[in-house]
Amino acid sequence: MPSAPPEIDAAGLIHGETGAQKLIGWTTDVGQPDGRARLFLEVDDRHANRHGVLHGGIQAMLLDSACGYTGSLHLDRAAMPQMMSLSFTTQFLAPCGRGRVMAIGRVTGGGRRTLFIDGELRDAEGRLVATGTGVYRPVARSV
Amino acid sequence: MPSAPPEIDAAGLIHGETGAQKLIGWTTDVGQPDGRARLFLEVDDRHANRHGVLHGGIQAMLLDSACGYTGSLHLDRAAMPQMMSLSFTTQFLAPCGRGRVMAIGRVTGGGRRTLFIDGELRDAEGRLVATGTGVYRPVARSV
Amino acid sequence: MPSAPPEIDAAGLIHGETGAQKLIGWTTDVGQPDGRARLFLEVDDRHANRHGVLHGGIQAMLLDSACGYTGSLHLDRAAMPQMMSLSFTTQFLAPCGRGRVMAIGRVTGGGRRTLFIDGELRDAEGRLVATGTGVYRPVARSV
Amino acid sequence: MPSAPPEIDAAGLIHGETGAQKLIGWTTDVGQPDGRARLFLEVDDRHANRHGVLHGGIQAMLLDSACGYTGSLHLDRAAMPQMMSLSFTTQFLAPCGRGRVMAIGRVTGGGRRTLFIDGELRDAEGRLVATGTGVYRPVARSV
Repeated sequence: MPSAPPEIDAAGLIHGETGAQKLIGWTTDVGQPDGRARLFLEVDDRHANRHGVLHGGIQAMLLDSACGYTGSLHLDRAAMPQMMSLSFTTQFLAPCGRGRVMAIGRVTGGGRRTLFIDGELRDAEGRLVATGTGVYRPVARSV
Repeated sequence: MPSAPPEIDAAGLIHGETGAQKLIGWTTDVGQPDGRARLFLEVDDRHANRHGVLHGGIQAMLLDSACGYTGSLHLDRAAMPQMMSLSFTTQFLAPCGRGRVMAIGRVTGGGRRTLFIDGELRDAEGRLVATGTGVYRPVARSV
Repeated sequence: MPSAPPEIDAAGLIHGETGAQKLIGWTTDVGQPDGRARLFLEVDDRHANRHGVLHGGIQAMLLDSACGYTGSLHLDRAAMPQMMSLSFTTQFLAPCGRGRVMAIGRVTGGGRRTLFIDGELRDAEGRLVATGTGVYRPVARSV
Repeated sequence: MPSAPPEIDAAGLIHGETGAQKLIGWTTDVGQPDGRARLFLEVDDRHANRHGVLHGGIQAMLLDSACGYTGSLHLDRAAMPQMMSLSFTTQFLAPCGRGRVMAIGRVTGGGRRTLFIDGELRDAEGRLVATGTGVYRPVARSV
């Protein structure tokens, strides 16, 4: 069952597409000419872990989602087929404080059946705070 | 700066300790005799991804948190020192639907400075839907 | 192009099937009733890293290979279709000294198109020294 | 016990420093001005897997070693303290054939106690065939 492409506004942004996106509160930018998806999140108390900084799970979530949308753009910019993560590894380089963070994806290899996508997460000052690498597959093709 | 142990109720449960825990809505059980932390989440629409099932990022979050709390219990059951993830890998074995899921951690190796902790995520029917493996360090020791 | 199954002796062992196996010198046991492949290697100076213990890359190699053969057994015990690793993560729990080490695989999930397989590496005393987790695909199916 | 730095020739190359390096046959270049270590290997039949291409374990080995040497250079270019891998993830993007391959490392973050290092493996035509990401610690500091 191929899925409908997400609703994208005139600025190339996706808002509140899924329950998870609404819950966490990020915005997805799929309109950049380089074909790489970006996620933006205004980090506040709601996203904190026991140390008072951005929860590692949310970091993984932003990275994984940025990579997934980047894969959708890579395979078909218009239809944006949904991607499924098979495996995802996050490296937590440094604590990430409040303010507007950005996650961005980059396809490193693969083909129509499998894509390898890396991601970077930068804090409000542009500092690299986490990296991720995942293996993805388009959802339309059954497991 | 050693941190205060979390507030644990008579049943061994931690509720809403952090912003992230409140936002996602899980409950943490650190009172089991085997010393393994368990996280429980009632999965609903708020946790869905583009495919209508539990978002992979939330799966990673539950696994990472279950592993972190398991490390705290392992190092000092009373003080529960905070753990920092250095690296975390999630394998997404199968889609995870609605209902009460459970993530559980297990220490596989390491010492006072570094712990290796694996996790399992099971859906409401007890089926294994994701596994995780991470490298952790107690927070009190600075990077 | 489906490949021929490997040559297996009466004891269920594979010797020197590939250049890499001959070079490193492990033996593969695919004859156990539990369907899990085991690799055995007599670790000596040739396998040492800068610290004089088993090189991490050889640990990853033994784990990855044990997982791959376990996947072959899982899919078809007789034909043993070749498996391709898409992603592999190794956790290095403890240094591994000389003597006979064993790597063993275990399928955790997946189906005909993708398998998730974990591995354990134990030293000559049976101590767990490394764990691994990988995503695999049968080779016959093109990327 | 801090270790002696490796023997480096006038061209900045390390030959046969360890048993594993001699066995596999790579050359390590630690003399480049960018401070990134490179490993070179002439891939032949001895390095083949069941598919007749470079064994994934050897790919992981080259990547892990390139990352480790890059960490040594990063911490102290002269002393080159030995690095220990805590965790290493390899993504296998494409099959890697015969000829001279190169693995190269790049520090992405961390400090004196922990380093995060990524690696790339390119085949004889310069094509990216595998990527890796690891968490490292200097060996002199005990676990």
